[in-house]
Order: sequence, then C-alpha cells, then structure tokens
Amino acid sequence: MPRLVVRSFAVSLDGFSAAPGQSLEEPFGHNGLRLMDWAFPTKYFTQMFGKSGGEEGTDNDFATRADDNIGATIMGRHMFGPDRGPWDLGWKGWWGDTPPYHHPVFVLCHEKREPFELLGGTSISFVTEGIESALDQAFAAAKGKDVRIGGGPATVKQYLKAGLVDELHLVQVPLLLGQGESLFEGLAGIEDRYECVGFTPSKRATHLKIVRKT
Amino acid sequence: MPRLVVRSFAVSLDGFSAAPGQSLEEPFGHNGLRLMDWAFPTKYFTQMFGKSGGEEGTDNDFATRADDNIGATIMGRHMFGPDRGPWDLGWKGWWGDTPPYHHPVFVLCHEKREPFELLGGTSISFVTEGIESALDQAFAAAKGKDVRIGGGPATVKQYLKAGLVDELHLVQVPLLLGQGESLFEGLAGIEDRYECVGFTPSKRATHLKIVRKT
Repeated sequence: MPRLVVRSFAVSLDGFSAAPGQSLEEPFGHNGLRLMDWAFPTKYFTQMFGKSGGEEGTDNDFATRADDNIGATIMGRHMFGPDRGPWDLGWKGWWGDTPPYHHPVFVLCHEKREPFELLGGTSISFVTEGIESALDQAFAAAKGKDVRIGGGPATVKQYLKAGLVDELHLVQVPLLLGQGESLFEGLAGIEDRYECVGFTPSKRATHLKIVRKT
Repeated sequence: MPRLVVRSFAVSLDGFSAAPGQSLEEPFGHNGLRLMDWAFPTKYFTQMFGKSGGEEGTDNDFATRADDNIGATIMGRHMFGPDRGPWDLGWKGWWGDTPPYHHPVFVLCHEKREPFELLGGTSISFVTEGIESALDQAFAAAKGKDVRIGGGPATVKQYLKAGLVDELHLVQVPLLLGQGESLFEGLAGIEDRYECVGFTPSKRATHLKIVRKT
C-alpha cells in the first residue's frame, strides 16, 4: 500500500521547524535556515545545487533516501512561497526552472490558481478543498508510489492530527530557535497514535523515525 | 565564580519534561517515568538504588558528572512531592531517609514550612520569597560550589527566563509524550541569550550542552 510520509523534516531542539519572519530572502524565517545546517554539507544537497563534492555518511544517507519511492508531494502555501493573499502569478516557487521534485506537487491554499508545469517533470497544482482532497489527488498522481508531505510544520501537523501520516523522519538539530512554528504544540493525543521507533545520531543532528502504531 | 546549572534534565523529543497527571505513584506524570529510561540502566543509577552492576559509557558518564561540584539544589514543589495546597507534614520527599543530594535543598513554594534534616547530609528548606531569594540562600549554603536546579520544568523555565542559568545539560530522549509540561513553550527570546554548544549522542538519548552567550 502506498504510504503518506514526512522525510528530512528539520526541527530545532526546542521544537520549531520555522522561525518567525518568513520573507523572500529567508524561506525558513529570520535566521531559520540554520535548521538545514545538517543537510547543506551533504553530497546530496551539494550536487542538488550543481556543485561537486559534499560529505557522505549518515546525514547524506538520510537526505538521499528521502526521495525513495516518492510519486507526489503535498506542501502548504508557506512552503511554496513567501506571499500571502491573492496570488503573485509570477511566483513559481523557490526552486527555479527545474525544481528537485520531478513529480506532481500539490499546494494547499485558500485562493484558487491554475496549475502549471516546470522543467524536469515537476507540475504544480493548487488545492483549495482541504487536506483530504489533496491527499486523494496526490495518491492518484503518485501512481502507486508514496506521497510525501514537504512541509511546513502547519501542514505536517494537520495531517498528523488527522492520523493520516504513516511515517515521519525528523531531523532534530542542536539549535535553539526560541520561537517560530512549533511542530509539536497542540498535538496532545499523538502519543497514543504514534511512537518513535528509530534514533540515529549523526555528527550534526539526530535522525528520528516515528511511525503510526499498529 | 560559582554557577547555576541544570544537569541530567530529560526532555521528550516533543519538548516535554513531565507528563500530565503527577501522583504519588507517578512522579513524572502518567507514563512519564519513561523520560528516565536513558538513566536507569546506568551504573550510577543502579548503584544509587543499592544494586550492583549497571552500564558504563556515555549516559553513565553524564549521570555521574551531574553531581560534580554541586553544593546545593533548588527545586519546585512538584519535584519535591505530589501534594498541593497545605503541606502534608509527613511527606519528606520522594527519596526516603537518605536522599541522593547530601547537601542543602531549597524547595520553591507558596506555603511556609519549617526546614528539616534527613540522613546523609541532606537538609530541606522551603522558600516562599521567590526564585532570587532561593538562589541567594542556595549560593550561601553551597559555600563556593555550584548550585543545581533539580526541576521541574516550570522551575527551570523561571530561572531561564530571568537569564540566571549559566549552563544546562539536557537529555533529549526519543519519546513522544504529546502533552505535559513543556520545557520550551513561552521562552521566546532565549535564542538571543543561550546557545547549544555541545551535542553528544548515546545509544538511548542525545546529551545537549546549552550555555548563556558571553
């Protein structure tokens, strides 16, 4: 059965997955890009940015495996872009002409917008009918593969609260953000439905595997 | 200069240091004692409970070092006992006749109570004048050694918010509590004053060293 998964999702040691103050220059909020310090040195991310080299090892293994068997991605509007309200139709996402998805992407939002295609097999569709509709559309588009929730934290939490996520790979980084979007606040009851079954430290972070209890 | 420190303080992966529903049987709240799963197998804790054996290694090293150079302990009332309101004068703490402190302990509370002494050098005093008074009394009693905040999370947070803590050793355990007393909620601004400078994984947890920025 295809699954709904979260992968390579970074969270600060105090539980935040985004800092306040998202802007064009700072997709993770003010000083929030440090959440990705575990990832950028890896071979996977280095090569994604068109350079050679990069580190191998635990972090790179997780970063690479995050793409395994993913046929579609769901994300919230704040992960797609920094604007709010009516669409800036010139904005096509943070990722340039050839995004690293290479499959259909579904953006949860409140304002309708026509879908479009980018290079490398990525298409972007906008879903205003809620998380279950997005999930149905994503599973149909994934053609038997898994669906990944890209983020941000609000989107992950919506699916978690609904019990729809099968597995999460979180990357807990040793960083205090102090404020921002908490991944865990307001999830009372999650402890009855999910459990941490894997715990792999690297030199920069702790990789956690959380699954729905069977 | 003597310092104010927090040591061996466990926090769940979702940021809670106690579960809801503290009782006589469950000092860490309902199912909350799992927060100490990293500690109980260690040689240090095994011998504290009067048994022989126990594991050596990273967790044991941290558990043992937590006592280094500590001359007094401050704790909140909920760490001292499960009762609320007027004192049950028969209650002398969770730790039996010979608590593992062996130095003066100061309990923050709202109801006055006479101090008393237990075996092995532990004395218990009750402070109703607030956290700074407790700190002054503890430093005086520690005679040049450091003062440790034992817990619980509400007490640690009060001292953190006031910027009075010099160093924290947190033990982040791969466990979802979902609810309880959050160590991090409401600490906006902490990121400007504190930073994580150490990160040591063990097989059961991640040991974090957080210090006040200089």
